[in-house]
Amino acid sequence: MAVIGFIGLGIMGAPMARHLIRAGHDVRGFDVNADAVAGLAADGGTGATSSADAVRDAEVVITMLPADQHVEAVILGPGGVLMHARPGTLLIDMSTVSPQTSRAVAAAGRERGLRVLDAPVSGGETGAVEGVLSIMVGGEKDDFEAARPVLEALGRTIVHVGEHGAGQVVKAANQLVVAGIIALNAEALVLMEAAGVDPEPGLTVLNGGLAGSTVLTRKMSAFLKRDYTPGFRIDLHHKDMGIVLRAAEAAGVGLPLAGQVSQLVAAARAAGMGSRDHSALLEVIERLNGRTKENAHA
Amino acid sequence: MAVIGFIGLGIMGAPMARHLIRAGHDVRGFDVNADAVAGLAADGGTGATSSADAVRDAEVVITMLPADQHVEAVILGPGGVLMHARPGTLLIDMSTVSPQTSRAVAAAGRERGLRVLDAPVSGGETGAVEGVLSIMVGGEKDDFEAARPVLEALGRTIVHVGEHGAGQVVKAANQLVVAGIIALNAEALVLMEAAGVDPEPGLTVLNGGLAGSTVLTRKMSAFLKRDYTPGFRIDLHHKDMGIVLRAAEAAGVGLPLAGQVSQLVAAARAAGMGSRDHSALLEVIERLNGRTKENAHA
Amino acid sequence: MAVIGFIGLGIMGAPMARHLIRAGHDVRGFDVNADAVAGLAADGGTGATSSADAVRDAEVVITMLPADQHVEAVILGPGGVLMHARPGTLLIDMSTVSPQTSRAVAAAGRERGLRVLDAPVSGGETGAVEGVLSIMVGGEKDDFEAARPVLEALGRTIVHVGEHGAGQVVKAANQLVVAGIIALNAEALVLMEAAGVDPEPGLTVLNGGLAGSTVLTRKMSAFLKRDYTPGFRIDLHHKDMGIVLRAAEAAGVGLPLAGQVSQLVAAARAAGMGSRDHSALLEVIERLNGRTKENAHA
Amino acid sequence: MAVIGFIGLGIMGAPMARHLIRAGHDVRGFDVNADAVAGLAADGGTGATSSADAVRDAEVVITMLPADQHVEAVILGPGGVLMHARPGTLLIDMSTVSPQTSRAVAAAGRERGLRVLDAPVSGGETGAVEGVLSIMVGGEKDDFEAARPVLEALGRTIVHVGEHGAGQVVKAANQLVVAGIIALNAEALVLMEAAGVDPEPGLTVLNGGLAGSTVLTRKMSAFLKRDYTPGFRIDLHHKDMGIVLRAAEAAGVGLPLAGQVSQLVAAARAAGMGSRDHSALLEVIERLNGRTKENAHA
Repeated sequence: MAVIGFIGLGIMGAPMARHLIRAGHDVRGFDVNADAVAGLAADGGTGATSSADAVRDAEVVITMLPADQHVEAVILGPGGVLMHARPGTLLIDMSTVSPQTSRAVAAAGRERGLRVLDAPVSGGETGAVEGVLSIMVGGEKDDFEAARPVLEALGRTIVHVGEHGAGQVVKAANQLVVAGIIALNAEALVLMEAAGVDPEPGLTVLNGGLAGSTVLTRKMSAFLKRDYTPGFRIDLHHKDMGIVLRAAEAAGVGLPLAGQVSQLVAAARAAGMGSRDHSALLEVIERLNGRTKENAHA
Repeated sequence: MAVIGFIGLGIMGAPMARHLIRAGHDVRGFDVNADAVAGLAADGGTGATSSADAVRDAEVVITMLPADQHVEAVILGPGGVLMHARPGTLLIDMSTVSPQTSRAVAAAGRERGLRVLDAPVSGGETGAVEGVLSIMVGGEKDDFEAARPVLEALGRTIVHVGEHGAGQVVKAANQLVVAGIIALNAEALVLMEAAGVDPEPGLTVLNGGLAGSTVLTRKMSAFLKRDYTPGFRIDLHHKDMGIVLRAAEAAGVGLPLAGQVSQLVAAARAAGMGSRDHSALLEVIERLNGRTKENAHA
Repeated sequence: MAVIGFIGLGIMGAPMARHLIRAGHDVRGFDVNADAVAGLAADGGTGATSSADAVRDAEVVITMLPADQHVEAVILGPGGVLMHARPGTLLIDMSTVSPQTSRAVAAAGRERGLRVLDAPVSGGETGAVEGVLSIMVGGEKDDFEAARPVLEALGRTIVHVGEHGAGQVVKAANQLVVAGIIALNAEALVLMEAAGVDPEPGLTVLNGGLAGSTVLTRKMSAFLKRDYTPGFRIDLHHKDMGIVLRAAEAAGVGLPLAGQVSQLVAAARAAGMGSRDHSALLEVIERLNGRTKENAHA
Repeated sequence: MAVIGFIGLGIMGAPMARHLIRAGHDVRGFDVNADAVAGLAADGGTGATSSADAVRDAEVVITMLPADQHVEAVILGPGGVLMHARPGTLLIDMSTVSPQTSRAVAAAGRERGLRVLDAPVSGGETGAVEGVLSIMVGGEKDDFEAARPVLEALGRTIVHVGEHGAGQVVKAANQLVVAGIIALNAEALVLMEAAGVDPEPGLTVLNGGLAGSTVLTRKMSAFLKRDYTPGFRIDLHHKDMGIVLRAAEAAGVGLPLAGQVSQLVAAARAAGMGSRDHSALLEVIERLNGRTKENAHA
């Protein structure tokens, strides 16, 4: 079992750190929120007083942070992980950030003698709590093999997808497809309702055939009720669509649906739905058509 | 068991008619292709010499035709079903046509004393051969109940979704979502490949999480190999996207993704992929980016 | 000077017929609105009692009708133009309809010995009143030359663009570009306002450079005031975008911006702006972003 | 007349600096390309040995650089403008960069006692050579008034559009509208050609009416000949569309056409057209439809 420094004990990070404790690891956790650190200590981990304190004696460091600027500050910044982790440490950044940031972290880590992986996840809060995340990992194959026993406490599908940044590219692709499928089903529902068709049996038939999707399986009930309780918030999906566009830009490709879907997500946020579930893309298609209903659950 | 007139013994209609024979019905089949009629007779049905002949003594008439103009000619035209079927006959049009056409057929049938349902299917040739189609039915509830025993020989999911034309609206929604999900996964794959990520584990992770879909489950292998053997042809999906746009126009709604997806399907056809599988939308995204590979299976 | 049967004395047709009278022609006008016929008679024309009456002795017949179904009824239908016009008559259909309809009219006219041109216009009510329309003409070159002296009373730019239907294709292209430019400037304005930039000098600079357009020159003031007084109504532009999509379908091409723009126009109509000017596409972009202002001019 | 430090003597900067010399200013120019510096000296300016040398005694500093990273390095970096310019200097950054970068430059400049304006231009190389650029200026009104006499040597339309960064927002809006109008006319041309219509009279009629634009006036001939000699390169427009998307993100709005147009520009670059004129968006629409012609001018 390993000594693990864990930075970022939020909605995702906190249950992940607990799974590591339960698996027998010595977890030293830090977060800017002192209550989160105290909670971890109460559950059998060690509360650290800073990032530096969390990583100083760690064999493995895991970071689970909200966005690129946090990763840059916490890992690359003064007082950050790279400055205080020991050479040879395995740094697994599980945040969702741009592939470019992951490549920059990997390059800076290499200079300091660290082994670095990008390992973003899908599966959301539920997946984190239940320890069944999908984990897409970029970096050296050997480092992936070294990380696998640790990651197995956190997820069910753990796949090495390529070089540094590749995990983030796959996560970006994932977020593009998810947002797009939500928006497509939103258009399907609006079409059915506008044509006087009962959408409940309609969506049910769709989901039973080639149009079926995990999105529709999980969101149909909320869709029909316009219950946009998160779940995965529009604000986060908006951040992720920014990563999609920048990843496409960096890869030198044009993705026409990604272009349009990203703007629908941005419009949801612009219209004040930022803290609602991403299924609120339905509200965007309805609003566009002047069909917005009073949302009993807002 | 019923006397069933069956018109349209093509790739879909032929196996459907055989399922009805196997279920014990007296099936009188007609098609403009004489070989198809002979084949049905050889398999235990009765070959009819014309549409009129097929429907003259039928209690139930099923039509399975390629497009709106065929439905108009065969059902509404001179020498057509409405002219020769007996009052009280249950006419089930299982073709995929526009909701407007289905409503016109229902109105004309009512004038002649027929009961009419629109009952388009999803599931493709495989679903027809295996008798596991999804069937979305529009029309009167009583007529739906009367048709159900017959339809149960053809499909697994058989749902009444609303008034005349509602089956077609749901089918249109289905085709929109299917084409959109194919295109989204095409963009995901192009992004991964352009970024140097191995797409096979990448798509596998996607399909294991919230981005998962029946499309990806069924098409992943063909996608990775660029094997566009049909399957469901671009030409047919192009016809169906025309129905989507006209259904949206008739319902008075604007569907921005449908607008874009319809043009990607049209572009596939314009570029000579009309007779390839609809997974060839991948080729459109690649062509757009100057990334088209030689397709070893074309 | 010619004997001209003129059918369709609406907002566009009435001032056009008057220009022909002023140019010395013997104009025999008909419209389903009796007041319009009386008005023409009062201004020096001859009021006709029916389409048949208007065209019976005419050398030239001009039709200016709202949509495909009116052209089909008035020209092709029983009691229509083709039945009553003399062989050799020059039929100029100036309605905006689909290229397919124009080709059908031309074919039917040829069978009856008529010479047919499609000659849709741009320039709107103002262009009709001032006699400065742009006229795009499809059909035989000789017939175009024969029609030119008549058309010169109505427009300033009169161009032969190709075979039967070609005038409609160019008109469709025109309507696509116009709607698209309106929507682009709407997005530009929303971007500027959301970023805290004064849009009046902003749009002014745009119009002075490569981003300049006739749309912006004519609509900027209305845009800034959200004054959507028609002008050219969303309902009509929605009809025209349907023609664009069908023309693209018939020509076998996919047009991605046309796909999206058509749905924005449809959304404007869905949201109740059908009778407002097409500059109300700005309202669609604002609504999408939850930025709709009270419109002082609605 | 003023002492002006001018950094960035490229295709745009070189002719701009010469206009300032001709207007009587004492221009001290620097560029990483020594030939460009020598050329300026030969034309009556003073060649500087570094950015520091160029700005040390200047009352006005003008920067004309390719992209955000160059502005950050040359203005904010060690040895940069802010370090070496005297307090009170008027710094006019005429580069096209993101509004966020312009705001950062303005904030940093203020700390060092400089007055800063963002003043991007439109009009391209021709506009620079002829001294007829459109200049959109963000920053303090007083500073704008102080800069105006200098800017009048460079442009014809010089407008103050708002606070720091506002010039860049307007430039971003400009680039969105320009790319969109090119793409719309490309679709119009492809529609006409696919429908068998002669595009030359077709585009001419369009340009004479409400669909008219400066883009069409300037590019029609090149469009019809598929002559994509730059002009303004796709690579630069791609950079600018990135700024559009980031400006929209920063402003919190979703712009659906911008989303799609940005990806068409990216696709042009992906397909190897990066160094061609932005009118090569036509090639993207043709390629999408499998209609690409041999380009005699490539």
